[in-house]
Amino acid sequence: MSKTTVSTAHPFDQALALMPVAVTAQEHGREATRHWQGHTHAAYWNMVGPFGGLTAAQALQAVLQHPERLGEPVSFTVNFAAALAEGSFRVEARPVRTNRSTQHWTVAILQTDDAGLDSVMLTATAVTAKRRGTWSAADAVMPEVPAPETIARASSARRVAWVQRYDLRPCAGELPAAWDDAEADSLTQLWMRDDPPRPLDFCSLTALADVFYPRVWRRRARMTPVGTVSMTVYFHAGAAELAATGEGYLLGQARAQSFFNGFFDQSAELWNQAGQLLATSHQIVYFKE
Amino acid sequence: MSKTTVSTAHPFDQALALMPVAVTAQEHGREATRHWQGHTHAAYWNMVGPFGGLTAAQALQAVLQHPERLGEPVSFTVNFAAALAEGSFRVEARPVRTNRSTQHWTVAILQTDDAGLDSVMLTATAVTAKRRGTWSAADAVMPEVPAPETIARASSARRVAWVQRYDLRPCAGELPAAWDDAEADSLTQLWMRDDPPRPLDFCSLTALADVFYPRVWRRRARMTPVGTVSMTVYFHAGAAELAATGEGYLLGQARAQSFFNGFFDQSAELWNQAGQLLATSHQIVYFKE
Repeated sequence: MSKTTVSTAHPFDQALALMPVAVTAQEHGREATRHWQGHTHAAYWNMVGPFGGLTAAQALQAVLQHPERLGEPVSFTVNFAAALAEGSFRVEARPVRTNRSTQHWTVAILQTDDAGLDSVMLTATAVTAKRRGTWSAADAVMPEVPAPETIARASSARRVAWVQRYDLRPCAGELPAAWDDAEADSLTQLWMRDDPPRPLDFCSLTALADVFYPRVWRRRARMTPVGTVSMTVYFHAGAAELAATGEGYLLGQARAQSFFNGFFDQSAELWNQAGQLLATSHQIVYFKE
Repeated sequence: MSKTTVSTAHPFDQALALMPVAVTAQEHGREATRHWQGHTHAAYWNMVGPFGGLTAAQALQAVLQHPERLGEPVSFTVNFAAALAEGSFRVEARPVRTNRSTQHWTVAILQTDDAGLDSVMLTATAVTAKRRGTWSAADAVMPEVPAPETIARASSARRVAWVQRYDLRPCAGELPAAWDDAEADSLTQLWMRDDPPRPLDFCSLTALADVFYPRVWRRRARMTPVGTVSMTVYFHAGAAELAATGEGYLLGQARAQSFFNGFFDQSAELWNQAGQLLATSHQIVYFKE
């Protein structure tokens, strides 16, 4: 466990620090819910709330530090119900079903408004599993791109705070240089890692799956208001593979398949430099006009 | 509303019939939970439980018939925690957050065991939304395949019951003719519709997203035990587009990106015959050895 309370801790670890506040007893056949208090972090602030990838990571962290957890994350879905307000929030994580080798979780993040009312800001579900060694194969083809050391880092000047927490090196499909409504494809490929560098784990991999700027901005060269409503991450690696990746860059690729009446999708893949596919991720995003 | 109680109703509508049993008051800032009783259906039985696509549709139906529902489904994620036993089950659906144009849902399916204990069999989350007309575009390319009328229907002889409820016409990537461990790609393309034909709606589209046989069977030409643990459907069409599709065939395409230590993923797209992309879907599936 990293020392998340000292000021020299990585900002991502500072943000992941959750303090236990309560345990709710079993209910309707579900096991105990653990309640934690967390805080938004200025270093990961977006325009009207925190970077969604960080909030997703904080929700996953509640599962990972639950004492009844079985195995490692295989699947994680977060639904962003509302932008978190700056300050503290409550995370609830409950293992609703524990099987022999898999475990199913429900997670919620709540905040209390000025009138003292609790509001649900995020819901999530997770599946954790004790993996067994099996025949394995990756069919997704890693794109051939130049090494990250040979690519200039994208400027984060005039960008929101959280972008500065990532070393992003675009290979293809950069943020449009001109917002001129010139339609293009929706593909982006880029090298990415935490800044400062930090050894990869399930939480940071979850956040990295959300670093792609909105596909509709690329597709249309038009900057319209957007917001992810749901994101799923499938983990195709265990803790050992993430540890072996260490502080190395990941190659991320993302594209959309459909833009329809206010919502578009994004599918993404993340490989480490050794060429191992670590995660695939999908999200659906609200966009205006 | 179709008359689901008469014996001439389509088996899918019979299976979707949920009877209201209770309403739970507001709790922790969440709105009222509605509880319904549903039943498994023999016509959609799989090997050791119901066809997962049907169970997913039953969970979505609880959202769709909730009196507080806002708009239409945009995103739906189901987690299969355990195989339902034959008989009745309880579905709980709760709108946990209602915004101006979007609404977030949590859903659970529970069954009571012989000892009188409730067990969670399925968890789900959904986002519904009042869509507005916007710029729209589909980037996923519909494969060029022969028309469904020119393709022989796949045999459902010696297959489980639910397969007989679908008219499946494979274009590529059929079930391997020989289980000889010959590795291949994981791609399947097929035309599909309900049997008997039934006008498309969000529930049947959800079920159709799950009709593909397991990717690992195709990839390895080896029949190993499998079970979907989580499935997400993104809807890229509204009720009007589904109604316009009517009883027509959908072209479905599915493939895997990773098989790793006991779990593989599947990504799928579903178009109608007019070429409109109606849904994309993703799942992660347990497999043995």
